[in-house]
Amino acid sequence: MVRPAGKPPLSSATAEFGARVRARRHELALSQEALADRSELHWTYFGQVERGQVNISLHNILKIADALEVDPADLVTGLK
Amino acid sequence: MVRPAGKPPLSSATAEFGARVRARRHELALSQEALADRSELHWTYFGQVERGQVNISLHNILKIADALEVDPADLVTGLK
Repeated sequence: MVRPAGKPPLSSATAEFGARVRARRHELALSQEALADRSELHWTYFGQVERGQVNISLHNILKIADALEVDPADLVTGLK
Repeated sequence: MVRPAGKPPLSSATAEFGARVRARRHELALSQEALADRSELHWTYFGQVERGQVNISLHNILKIADALEVDPADLVTGLK
């Protein structure tokens, strides 16, 4: 399947945040859909988060951290 | 001056986030206005953040952490 070009990340911060989410999701061997279900977010939104296209809110950071079984701090440490 | 009743915090997470911001601002002996200037946020918005009335975005978390000279992780560690 050809991947559509899609939007670029909003910023290096959102790109790095999304990369950490994706890496941790892979550690847990979960699909985007499974993690979206766990975090009560829509899977299309979840894909945007992983691609760094969302300036995500605190509440959604916490939902994702909970679903990923990490402290929210792990997802934002060192971001600028 | 009588403080207006104002809105309650959105959640325990935003309340705790705001309390950490305020505590660190006090450590730095900065006014809300001074910190709002540093973080390029409007001071009225900054007051709402400290009162937990804002579901703050990642970009604004990073601006505030930078202005407070802390890692963004410090502001969200352990939040649920």
